[in-house]
Amino acid sequence: MPSFKTTYRVSWVDTDAAQVVHFSNYFRIFEKAEEEMFAKLGFSFDEVRKKFDIWLPRVEAFCKFKAPARFGDTLEVNLTVQQIMDKAVRYTFEITNQKTEQVIAEGYVVIVVADKKSGHAISIPKELVKKLETYKMP
Amino acid sequence: MPSFKTTYRVSWVDTDAAQVVHFSNYFRIFEKAEEEMFAKLGFSFDEVRKKFDIWLPRVEAFCKFKAPARFGDTLEVNLTVQQIMDKAVRYTFEITNQKTEQVIAEGYVVIVVADKKSGHAISIPKELVKKLETYKMP
Amino acid sequence: MPSFKTTYRVSWVDTDAAQVVHFSNYFRIFEKAEEEMFAKLGFSFDEVRKKFDIWLPRVEAFCKFKAPARFGDTLEVNLTVQQIMDKAVRYTFEITNQKTEQVIAEGYVVIVVADKKSGHAISIPKELVKKLETYKMP
Amino acid sequence: MPSFKTTYRVSWVDTDAAQVVHFSNYFRIFEKAEEEMFAKLGFSFDEVRKKFDIWLPRVEAFCKFKAPARFGDTLEVNLTVQQIMDKAVRYTFEITNQKTEQVIAEGYVVIVVADKKSGHAISIPKELVKKLETYKMP
Repeated sequence: MPSFKTTYRVSWVDTDAAQVVHFSNYFRIFEKAEEEMFAKLGFSFDEVRKKFDIWLPRVEAFCKFKAPARFGDTLEVNLTVQQIMDKAVRYTFEITNQKTEQVIAEGYVVIVVADKKSGHAISIPKELVKKLETYKMP
Repeated sequence: MPSFKTTYRVSWVDTDAAQVVHFSNYFRIFEKAEEEMFAKLGFSFDEVRKKFDIWLPRVEAFCKFKAPARFGDTLEVNLTVQQIMDKAVRYTFEITNQKTEQVIAEGYVVIVVADKKSGHAISIPKELVKKLETYKMP
Repeated sequence: MPSFKTTYRVSWVDTDAAQVVHFSNYFRIFEKAEEEMFAKLGFSFDEVRKKFDIWLPRVEAFCKFKAPARFGDTLEVNLTVQQIMDKAVRYTFEITNQKTEQVIAEGYVVIVVADKKSGHAISIPKELVKKLETYKMP
Repeated sequence: MPSFKTTYRVSWVDTDAAQVVHFSNYFRIFEKAEEEMFAKLGFSFDEVRKKFDIWLPRVEAFCKFKAPARFGDTLEVNLTVQQIMDKAVRYTFEITNQKTEQVIAEGYVVIVVADKKSGHAISIPKELVKKLETYKMP
């Protein structure tokens, strides 16, 4: 499957007193993967924002936490562009422990493309759609 | 409805470069409300953990981001105990802007009760069930 | 001493795998106290920024971590305006455990007043100086 | 100079409403560099903790913020082991913008080696001293 793959090593600050990654941080790991995907696609998240004068606010986020991750673990993050709609994109994520291959977390995030001035959702710029198709599910 | 209500004022560190609260932080605001609910019910999250020798890991979290919140906004957080299962509890959350009454975010979190030694899910202690019923949907 | 006093209850997300507050979070607790001080002085951090068209970037921060704080601890935060310079303000902070009265952390932060457009440091608006003197060391 | 060098790309979540990296995050970037240095030295932060049954609490942290860093910037982080004391280590850090070579932040952190059971500071294990000398200032 044409997913974007990256890794993330768990930092001390990511953990909580249960000695596992705090659940809110998986959403941050999702977003970091998206940032790296944009970089890989040849423009940064930021250039996207500047070039098209848009924000990419998140409108929905979901995660199932299946097993704990601990300090020092290397996580594999798989990002798939599941759906490209007129004004929104839906990503799915899977995080696995690189060593044990155990699934740690699975989820999705829906973003919209919003005009910076009006704040309203607008159609996704064609150049962006084309790029995102690189990692789109068939 | 018998929900637990609290407020949260948006800090500078909660915001991101779009000058709104970063989406991951709503999950942290959810958890803070849960911590305050436990305190209100007469025992802290931590006492719960110590008394029953349990963790309360999150197994699922979802949020719809409906409108942005900005630095200095006072948010009203409503937590409802939607469902108490044998080994799990499902909370729903609604966050509104206190001043404008606009809905900012809505979501839910499912926690399980896990034995600290084995890590396995166990039946929720009866004393805990009783307390949680205070804020349970009818 | 005319310091501004507030409290902060340690959240689960503030802790790390050593089961104590992560050191970086004390700087966030410092800033939250500053935000509350501004609110108490009758304008928010944000109004300050908008009214005078300034940022208040931090140029220096220091903290000594003297004892650990744990989940659920209530911390007392004392903020003193130590020095008001032409273009900068120096705050000192002391955090103690409310219950044990043990000193947890001590530090200082230096902020400058920067013009939003040029980014350059400018003289502190007189109205701001007047307000800050409320909590100034004699 | 025999410093440990790594890079860090600024994530969206690292920024605040001034559209620059929040000051508290530089301390997290410092710690990430330390984690990577330990990994490079052949054992992880975590192995260090387990092997010697120690924590490495921070007792002092300082940072001067000299220029802002923005979303997407690649930062160069230089960590130098400035001083190895009997029970403590002092690191210095310098963060520069990789592209502009501008100095972004400079600071130091002092850690102690603490016995996990007693919580008291103890002499640094010799094996650890030896490793840390790799990046020690002459």
